[in-house]
Amino acid sequence: MATYDFSIETLGKAKIPSPIHMSDKDGDGFADYVSDDDKILYCIDTVTTEDGHRVPKSEETVELAGPRQKIYFNPSHVHAAIATCGGICPGLNNVIRAIVRCLWYRYGVRRISGIRFGYQGLLPTSKEPPLELDPDVVDDIQEKGGTILGSARGGGKQTADIVDTLERMNVNILFTIGGDGTLRGAHAIHEEIKARGLKISVVGVPKTIDNDLAFIQTSFGFDTAVSSAVPVVRSAHIEAKNAINGIGLVKVMGRESGFIAAHTSLAQSDVNFCLIPENPFDLYGDKGLLPLLKKRLNSRGHAVILVAEGAGQDLIPKTGETDASGNTKYSDIGLFLKEEIIKYFKEQDMTINIKYIDPSYIIRSAPADSYDSIYCARLGANAVHAAMAGKTDVLTSMINDRFINLPIKLAISSRSRVNTESALWRDVLENTRQPDSMKN
Amino acid sequence: MATYDFSIETLGKAKIPSPIHMSDKDGDGFADYVSDDDKILYCIDTVTTEDGHRVPKSEETVELAGPRQKIYFNPSHVHAAIATCGGICPGLNNVIRAIVRCLWYRYGVRRISGIRFGYQGLLPTSKEPPLELDPDVVDDIQEKGGTILGSARGGGKQTADIVDTLERMNVNILFTIGGDGTLRGAHAIHEEIKARGLKISVVGVPKTIDNDLAFIQTSFGFDTAVSSAVPVVRSAHIEAKNAINGIGLVKVMGRESGFIAAHTSLAQSDVNFCLIPENPFDLYGDKGLLPLLKKRLNSRGHAVILVAEGAGQDLIPKTGETDASGNTKYSDIGLFLKEEIIKYFKEQDMTINIKYIDPSYIIRSAPADSYDSIYCARLGANAVHAAMAGKTDVLTSMINDRFINLPIKLAISSRSRVNTESALWRDVLENTRQPDSMKN
Amino acid sequence: MATYDFSIETLGKAKIPSPIHMSDKDGDGFADYVSDDDKILYCIDTVTTEDGHRVPKSEETVELAGPRQKIYFNPSHVHAAIATCGGICPGLNNVIRAIVRCLWYRYGVRRISGIRFGYQGLLPTSKEPPLELDPDVVDDIQEKGGTILGSARGGGKQTADIVDTLERMNVNILFTIGGDGTLRGAHAIHEEIKARGLKISVVGVPKTIDNDLAFIQTSFGFDTAVSSAVPVVRSAHIEAKNAINGIGLVKVMGRESGFIAAHTSLAQSDVNFCLIPENPFDLYGDKGLLPLLKKRLNSRGHAVILVAEGAGQDLIPKTGETDASGNTKYSDIGLFLKEEIIKYFKEQDMTINIKYIDPSYIIRSAPADSYDSIYCARLGANAVHAAMAGKTDVLTSMINDRFINLPIKLAISSRSRVNTESALWRDVLENTRQPDSMKN
Amino acid sequence: MATYDFSIETLGKAKIPSPIHMSDKDGDGFADYVSDDDKILYCIDTVTTEDGHRVPKSEETVELAGPRQKIYFNPSHVHAAIATCGGICPGLNNVIRAIVRCLWYRYGVRRISGIRFGYQGLLPTSKEPPLELDPDVVDDIQEKGGTILGSARGGGKQTADIVDTLERMNVNILFTIGGDGTLRGAHAIHEEIKARGLKISVVGVPKTIDNDLAFIQTSFGFDTAVSSAVPVVRSAHIEAKNAINGIGLVKVMGRESGFIAAHTSLAQSDVNFCLIPENPFDLYGDKGLLPLLKKRLNSRGHAVILVAEGAGQDLIPKTGETDASGNTKYSDIGLFLKEEIIKYFKEQDMTINIKYIDPSYIIRSAPADSYDSIYCARLGANAVHAAMAGKTDVLTSMINDRFINLPIKLAISSRSRVNTESALWRDVLENTRQPDSMKN
Repeated sequence: MATYDFSIETLGKAKIPSPIHMSDKDGDGFADYVSDDDKILYCIDTVTTEDGHRVPKSEETVELAGPRQKIYFNPSHVHAAIATCGGICPGLNNVIRAIVRCLWYRYGVRRISGIRFGYQGLLPTSKEPPLELDPDVVDDIQEKGGTILGSARGGGKQTADIVDTLERMNVNILFTIGGDGTLRGAHAIHEEIKARGLKISVVGVPKTIDNDLAFIQTSFGFDTAVSSAVPVVRSAHIEAKNAINGIGLVKVMGRESGFIAAHTSLAQSDVNFCLIPENPFDLYGDKGLLPLLKKRLNSRGHAVILVAEGAGQDLIPKTGETDASGNTKYSDIGLFLKEEIIKYFKEQDMTINIKYIDPSYIIRSAPADSYDSIYCARLGANAVHAAMAGKTDVLTSMINDRFINLPIKLAISSRSRVNTESALWRDVLENTRQPDSMKN
Repeated sequence: MATYDFSIETLGKAKIPSPIHMSDKDGDGFADYVSDDDKILYCIDTVTTEDGHRVPKSEETVELAGPRQKIYFNPSHVHAAIATCGGICPGLNNVIRAIVRCLWYRYGVRRISGIRFGYQGLLPTSKEPPLELDPDVVDDIQEKGGTILGSARGGGKQTADIVDTLERMNVNILFTIGGDGTLRGAHAIHEEIKARGLKISVVGVPKTIDNDLAFIQTSFGFDTAVSSAVPVVRSAHIEAKNAINGIGLVKVMGRESGFIAAHTSLAQSDVNFCLIPENPFDLYGDKGLLPLLKKRLNSRGHAVILVAEGAGQDLIPKTGETDASGNTKYSDIGLFLKEEIIKYFKEQDMTINIKYIDPSYIIRSAPADSYDSIYCARLGANAVHAAMAGKTDVLTSMINDRFINLPIKLAISSRSRVNTESALWRDVLENTRQPDSMKN
Repeated sequence: MATYDFSIETLGKAKIPSPIHMSDKDGDGFADYVSDDDKILYCIDTVTTEDGHRVPKSEETVELAGPRQKIYFNPSHVHAAIATCGGICPGLNNVIRAIVRCLWYRYGVRRISGIRFGYQGLLPTSKEPPLELDPDVVDDIQEKGGTILGSARGGGKQTADIVDTLERMNVNILFTIGGDGTLRGAHAIHEEIKARGLKISVVGVPKTIDNDLAFIQTSFGFDTAVSSAVPVVRSAHIEAKNAINGIGLVKVMGRESGFIAAHTSLAQSDVNFCLIPENPFDLYGDKGLLPLLKKRLNSRGHAVILVAEGAGQDLIPKTGETDASGNTKYSDIGLFLKEEIIKYFKEQDMTINIKYIDPSYIIRSAPADSYDSIYCARLGANAVHAAMAGKTDVLTSMINDRFINLPIKLAISSRSRVNTESALWRDVLENTRQPDSMKN
Repeated sequence: MATYDFSIETLGKAKIPSPIHMSDKDGDGFADYVSDDDKILYCIDTVTTEDGHRVPKSEETVELAGPRQKIYFNPSHVHAAIATCGGICPGLNNVIRAIVRCLWYRYGVRRISGIRFGYQGLLPTSKEPPLELDPDVVDDIQEKGGTILGSARGGGKQTADIVDTLERMNVNILFTIGGDGTLRGAHAIHEEIKARGLKISVVGVPKTIDNDLAFIQTSFGFDTAVSSAVPVVRSAHIEAKNAINGIGLVKVMGRESGFIAAHTSLAQSDVNFCLIPENPFDLYGDKGLLPLLKKRLNSRGHAVILVAEGAGQDLIPKTGETDASGNTKYSDIGLFLKEEIIKYFKEQDMTINIKYIDPSYIIRSAPADSYDSIYCARLGANAVHAAMAGKTDVLTSMINDRFINLPIKLAISSRSRVNTESALWRDVLENTRQPDSMKN
């Protein structure tokens, strides 16, 4: 098992008493502030030692998130900025709202700037002035999907320009809400800030609708994504069942990790084939998708296929293109499968009716469900607590069901993927009843 | 104003007392059966006569639907068959359920066959035996979209084969639920039945998610279609607002009539351009869509376009293909517009972010909302009342907010279209604030 | 058949050309303005005359609503006020929004005041200043239930005070959105205005979640009310089915008219007993509810009862109280039935499990569904067209599926009620399968 | 920190090879079965040892749930029975379905009996024969709330009778899905089985919509309960905002633990006062609810109160009654508060408008949302894995985000409650902005 460095960087000693009043209800002399010394185990799996003790497989501990008794920044001096980057995701507005409310009501911060369209709003070329944020502006924004700040890809590599802007604006806390690329940008911004000797805290809130960031139990928006995908699969199932040899084909997000597809298959028993990047499959041959599909149609008359966008990329020629975030542009596996299926059954001289649905924009733009609303409310508040305590190059996350502070560089060091030997995938196979392997 | 023949054909004199008990609550000696003589005016618009009277513009009257005091068929001899044809549409299961329940509970009919996959299930080549229907089988089916019978296009022209099957099955009532093509088929089946001197009632329930059948105030499933399109437009709006020069483009059903697009634009104030087949538009030139779109982006930074599938077909080359129902296959106006928009703004050297959503399968497969549930429950029951009274070549419809019996040949004689000088379109323009004309 | 006077009062001759541009697309020389002479028949039922003609049972005609070519008010002089009165109802915000947008964008009116908390906001005692309304303020308000203006009962009888306020504020158009009491108030305000010789137009938008106003095909919010009641009945059904002799009892709105209960029973096949004010019932005796309920439990093990709040009031002692609108306060028929059922089955020594749900506040506060959104958008616009044309003492309504102008006094002259000999109630009985009469 | 005995009892050695095929994809020689030796730490909080090591505060480990390589029962000999007990809860049908499918498809068990109405269906007095269950019967049941088996309280104390029935039916696995009382019953049944030397496995699936069972991270149905409560609070907020001094009062479940109220307050920022059993409050006095409410009304004009049913029980006289499960019947805190509020403001001579909503039955009967659907699918499968492996007196639960096997007696040894010094409650206070203490 690898070892990880979970220690958090700070701008300096936190000396200012927190304005947050905490009662000491149980009279043990300790109010419910969180101390930097409150740490949880990262690894809960155990091994037996030679002397018969059960110990965790690895000893690393992770710092709990939460309000500290002493803070680093004087709230009245704070100018905080918030940027949302990359594709939209359910819960963005909830996180913005939680950050603004916690800054305003709990710490008394009065200068909060909403940067427009991600890092691009921090570039000298930006034509969009920041939005002044306060509790009135963010009231009710969580009822809508998307982000009131707008979002855009790219810009994160112009580190020097961005730090120039932060200096010019006198920003001392920067919250960046975004995915892998955004967090890499945040880390680079932090490095530049450090190199310049500035006292600007950079705090990330990890966003990935694919749920593929390492060290993050579940990313915000993921639950909403799954619950938004479920009715679409239901539609595909109805279309499939209502036609002669009907095939419902649904593509969901999941560039490198099939979590949305896997969870949707568990939530919805209508899926017969769940195709994810982590579990390569063949089209032809005994174990291949197409013959299996034919078998299914012959026995049941209809089928539903749920495919993650990153699945089966080895089967189709790469586009070779990248988007503004530098991500490889994938060929559309959904359209590819649709055409392959049509071709195959034409060869088999078998009438089919295939309906392809791509609900990505519908899923991305959904407002957060109650699970994500709660999660985002707490995530945002904890990001503020970390920032006010002077922590930097840090993000707020959840591990073992607890909110924790995590070094940004750790979160971007690797990807989280569906382990095809895990209980999760085992349960997916149980639900879809698809074969364990579709590789010849 | 054209004149229409609303008279309904019957198989013969209805002589059997109805098994439906009706109380005569108000004691006027007449229970609330409906008489063939209960007729409503078709036309409610008026003119002033020379002698100063206000009279309807035309005098035609339409027969009210409902249970008759005498019926034609002996319920214990009835074998009814139900077929659902064409694309799926919200409410199909509700109509099936209503027909079965009314036949079973009100009239005591005990032989009801559900024909699989439309007219194809009545062809000698069909491999799918009919489903025996009773109230238990149809219990709860209305909670799901689609049709438990399955649906398919085509087959309606093999009239002789179909009537052979009806004879072989001893079917004496055939309910066909379908659109224009299906109803043409039903009318042809009726002609063949008549030519053979058979006593088989053919009763249609008109289905058109596009709401484009003549003499039908609103078709079932239409309200659900609009209410299902609304959140998709909301998604497109969020995607548009959240990106730099974001454009949300949504395509909805509407091959020849833009009712879904028009109503969705009224229900959802986010639409800036509502494009329908009845209102041709140019892409270029002063009044053209693209320059208007550019103007909108420059002033507001985002835009939402809602396009009916049949809109702008003059702008793109015809595919020349037809589907199994004989409908012309349209080129995809959504994809076409998407590409034209991208091309135009590339020429204009202006960054845009366009997101195209095609929610057709999601809309079609939705379960009926409460409005359509009520409507379908009543539509199905009235179809049964017509059939049991021995009416044939007839369909159940609503005109002037009343359920009526309508000759099938009338319903297929013309199309209903959005009148661009009507109050409806006037209100759409008011809501979208798009120009009255987008034609140079 | 009674005869009605549908003629509309006006403040004076409309002489100002409408600022609304209407194209004359079909080139018939007439743009699609509506003329006061465009009238539809009120009655569509027909009789046969002695000479064999089919004519409407009565000849009254109703004026179509819509924009006139000439208007009475100079838009730049208009100060419009809007008040929402009585209990909240789905669609209020939609109507407010439509009025504001039509005034602003179509006519160019720039002074629009939102009166707070109904007529009370027009009383000298009011502490709540009006809200200035413009398209930005009303943007998105339709996504929320209720009314941004607040609503309250009462105040409508202080006519002189209200007209004093209107004079003081220089209001020349007053829109009142409310029910029976509110419209009586509006009529009285109009009378006072007329007596004083003022030129203030009073235009009502009829609001009744119960759908019980005369001459109004369906009131706004009614469709949403039914669609909000449906899942509650589903809950009651699940509670009932899941318990031994489970009884689900749901009370819905409907003080004098059982339309919500009737439509909900049609939309939802789970209701076994639909109890409405128009159809009195006994508790005991052969045909009484309680023995029928026992029979149902013995045969099926569970039952669902849907009761309108005004049903069965003869069975319980009147409270004798009235609310601020002067409406008789009803005893709670839901609680009464619950207790009677418990008592009865205790006497019968039969274990039951009864669950009583009163979803009234949940129903009232729902945002408008798409049907009502469309309806309210058009209703509000037509109210503005009437006002700008100088019509007064008028309300906007729908009859025979067309938007019309209706004298307020006609709308308050009688109540609309469920006709228990109508097709509607016949279809309810068919769906619930309850006996035609539950009176011994 | 207390120490707990997490060891699981078994009926005997598991010797039969599991029929579940597991591939060994990574070729490490171990397929992904779970071993009894796979254990996770119960406690993830850490302390520093004298020699500077970070170790968990307590060393107890918990057995992971999942399929074992060897099983105890021969699937072809298994007769499994499933009972659902107590009040209904979202997800019951999902758990039933998952158990049936895992037994049937994964292990090949063909005799599965659904016991009707909880333990009562196992009593000699039961008139309801068990339902035979198979994948067809349980197909789609998860789309409905409640339980197809019916549920009832009580019966769990007639242990000898129940074990007699199990013997007579030759049941060798009993799944009981229920709460505290049900699990106590299950434990007692196990004791009786053991005393008689029988080989019957008793496996529980813990159900508590209140989320108050110890050692269970989150109980199934809880997420759905919160997401169902959220729109009701939204309704209450609209009712409150729309009236003069409007007060929306909502009561949710939570007899001894305020988790639903706390999470709903976090999901919904409209709550101003969240009252839970764990945080006693006064009505009067400086810190009392009523003066705080007055202050809120005076400053904002409306307020929303969310109260858990078990809150404030010290303020009202106990009823002294118990229900069939032996639970103390609470006085209705909602009605009590409503009356106290009315009384208080009458004394203060201040007009208020209070709307009280009790959505309990609507919440309980909701179908599981996608989160709970996934959770229940996996919970049910893991219960089957435990049973087939011969484990008994055990339940399936989740701790530290992992599925585990837990001794029943541990789950019923204590209650889970909202820790008012925890991060959760801190975040609730942050969201509601209510004072830390409402006790004088």
